[in-house]
Amino acid sequence: MTEPLKIAIAGLGTVGAGVLKLLAKNGELVAQRAGRRLTVTAVSARDKKRDRGVDISALKWFDDAAAMAQEADADVIVELVGGSDGIAKKVCETAIARGRHVITANKALLAIHGTALARAAEAKDVSLGYEAAVAGGIPVIKAVREGLAGNRIQRIYGILNGTCNYILTQMRKTGRAFEDVLADAQKLGYAEADPSFDVDGIDAAHKLAVLAALAFGTEVNFKGVHIEGIRHVSPMDLDYAKELGYRVKLLGVARMTEHGLEQRVHPCMVPLETPIADVEDVFNAVVAEGDFVGNAVFEGRGAGAGPTASAVLSDLVDLARGRRAPTFGVPVDSLARPPVSPMEKRRGSYYIRLMVVDRPGVIADVTAVLRDESVSLEAMLQRGRSPNETVPVVLTTHDTEEAAMNRALKKIGASSHVRETPRAIRIEAL
Amino acid sequence: MTEPLKIAIAGLGTVGAGVLKLLAKNGELVAQRAGRRLTVTAVSARDKKRDRGVDISALKWFDDAAAMAQEADADVIVELVGGSDGIAKKVCETAIARGRHVITANKALLAIHGTALARAAEAKDVSLGYEAAVAGGIPVIKAVREGLAGNRIQRIYGILNGTCNYILTQMRKTGRAFEDVLADAQKLGYAEADPSFDVDGIDAAHKLAVLAALAFGTEVNFKGVHIEGIRHVSPMDLDYAKELGYRVKLLGVARMTEHGLEQRVHPCMVPLETPIADVEDVFNAVVAEGDFVGNAVFEGRGAGAGPTASAVLSDLVDLARGRRAPTFGVPVDSLARPPVSPMEKRRGSYYIRLMVVDRPGVIADVTAVLRDESVSLEAMLQRGRSPNETVPVVLTTHDTEEAAMNRALKKIGASSHVRETPRAIRIEAL
Repeated sequence: MTEPLKIAIAGLGTVGAGVLKLLAKNGELVAQRAGRRLTVTAVSARDKKRDRGVDISALKWFDDAAAMAQEADADVIVELVGGSDGIAKKVCETAIARGRHVITANKALLAIHGTALARAAEAKDVSLGYEAAVAGGIPVIKAVREGLAGNRIQRIYGILNGTCNYILTQMRKTGRAFEDVLADAQKLGYAEADPSFDVDGIDAAHKLAVLAALAFGTEVNFKGVHIEGIRHVSPMDLDYAKELGYRVKLLGVARMTEHGLEQRVHPCMVPLETPIADVEDVFNAVVAEGDFVGNAVFEGRGAGAGPTASAVLSDLVDLARGRRAPTFGVPVDSLARPPVSPMEKRRGSYYIRLMVVDRPGVIADVTAVLRDESVSLEAMLQRGRSPNETVPVVLTTHDTEEAAMNRALKKIGASSHVRETPRAIRIEAL
Repeated sequence: MTEPLKIAIAGLGTVGAGVLKLLAKNGELVAQRAGRRLTVTAVSARDKKRDRGVDISALKWFDDAAAMAQEADADVIVELVGGSDGIAKKVCETAIARGRHVITANKALLAIHGTALARAAEAKDVSLGYEAAVAGGIPVIKAVREGLAGNRIQRIYGILNGTCNYILTQMRKTGRAFEDVLADAQKLGYAEADPSFDVDGIDAAHKLAVLAALAFGTEVNFKGVHIEGIRHVSPMDLDYAKELGYRVKLLGVARMTEHGLEQRVHPCMVPLETPIADVEDVFNAVVAEGDFVGNAVFEGRGAGAGPTASAVLSDLVDLARGRRAPTFGVPVDSLARPPVSPMEKRRGSYYIRLMVVDRPGVIADVTAVLRDESVSLEAMLQRGRSPNETVPVVLTTHDTEEAAMNRALKKIGASSHVRETPRAIRIEAL
């Protein structure tokens, strides 16, 4: 065997400790697969004394992670600090400038500075590994970058945030409201005290931007992601979804269209019979549609110490074996910069829920507006009758352009018969 | 860019032609990802004149594929001839001996000669790629070998034969018998004229033996696979499965147990709520259970020109980029040779269907036999009453050892009240 691969780890939260535990447990096996030992030589974290369930006394300690990236006796720096700027960015930049490989689980950093970091890494001929940044333990970065390398990817989409998927699953199963289920998820540790990053779709959008860059060979364009979270999804909508043969998921979807790159994160109705409809609770899944492979589905745990450590190890073993790849699949100078396909150009069908006064002529008014915008109806549901009370009316449309749908919703919402802002959920043809 | 990767293809059936079509369509994109062009320089097949929908006039033609492996101007030989011996084996052996990389879609060859070929490849320092041999377009070989390299795999299982999955799906949906559905599948081209290879589980067993070697770091042991096909599955059993909350799938399952390596292919009842239960028709899926990642699920098209060409390209791009890995994850001399865990040692639960005379005391006799073998019952179904007629009685058991189950079934089958050979289907806890 050759020299060990020397590793310095910045950040010893659950994932960093998980990497140490994995190497302690499976070190021999990993060495066989890697062709040499993987040896952690240095670590850095905020609190040296915290009990992490692993012995770090033999490792060189750095109070300053960026200093470690510069000075440690290491071939690769594993960045597990998190955050799109600050220390995490400095650690990665320093390591690359120093000619060291970088492995990171940091989707926020990559979503915002991914192209620049990839360019720097390429200039220094070092690898920038980020299997752990998207979909946790599921080796989807490797699968798309290498396993599907023969394909032009037509669309890639997935359930990229376990917190949202957990909340939507529990809402559906219990009929409880978003806020209630969120509070429970926080107690269980599935959601942060400040849940915005997850439930407003930002975390999923970070991951989608990275995945899209890889799938389409484009510069990372986080600003080009249309983002909606799950706060407005109501148990009533989940019930109607079921009745209509759908399940509601927060999806990240990226597609190359005639108008440019479409990237969007929002609640979707997906047909019950698609594989992704059954991905429940904290699980993640990614579906890549290739022109030769067809649909390839990857599913597993999207977060947690074990799965994320597993993903970090995948990148480490690649480095140990000398397996390299351009960060986003092709050289940085080949990355395209397509225009952002505007959401108004999205074509697809829609679920619409209106709270209307139950009175003759209301439906005629609504359907006239839709007709005027050339939106054709697929189905309409109205249960029971309560004259002069407010009742829900649910409509689904055939394929239409989002601009037309928006105009129609604005007109419908302005009607005196419509008592709440109309709710629309996009139906995704999968 | 460096020199092109030069490729010679042995076998121009649908898959070989598919590789040529893929390179014709996506050649530019693939070159960016591979860092150099992939150029087919030579081909060999039985009939030079056959119309394959691709122009091969510029390629050097060999009537003799083994001669091509020896003489062609190529860095890698792609073997798409098929069959565990004969030309396919000679092509691979010749190419390796000549110091050329080999890529093959040939699971039969690998199942029987995999260890020897891996040893030869390692001695000559060439790669032996076989992404296309297991689960078609799903990049599961790469995922297990590299993506899950940090994990000790505890169990790996999957739906590895699309023909069987199609037949079982259609039987369930239509209620028709195996023979009827098989005849239809043959008309549709989903099953061969001689279907034995597929429906008797041999093809799935080939793939399982290869997958198990990779997952557990063992020599390939096809002879150690217990194999049962789907001919005995009846529509009645599929109905009962549904009633009990299961779906019947032909699974390949490999597990390292205290008794050695357990490898088995047979119809299984899988819980309806597991991801694999929803993998229908010709689709394949593989689930790997790792000690850190948890369950990772990979699903997609398991056969066909496009998916298989996609898998061949994955191996080709790896070679072009210089990405190498030991054939079965670790060096050949490190491959273990565990004993075969005998089927009698399998622990699990069972579905049993008996055709019995509807007469007082019959059930008491049956349950007494089970009690004597310490097999405990979980559920019993008997619908309606038809005194003195033959009626089905369905039982499910708690976990028991297969040896005890077999003894009980033998005694039960010998009873004069039992009119047909008892049918047992293993229930797999997933």
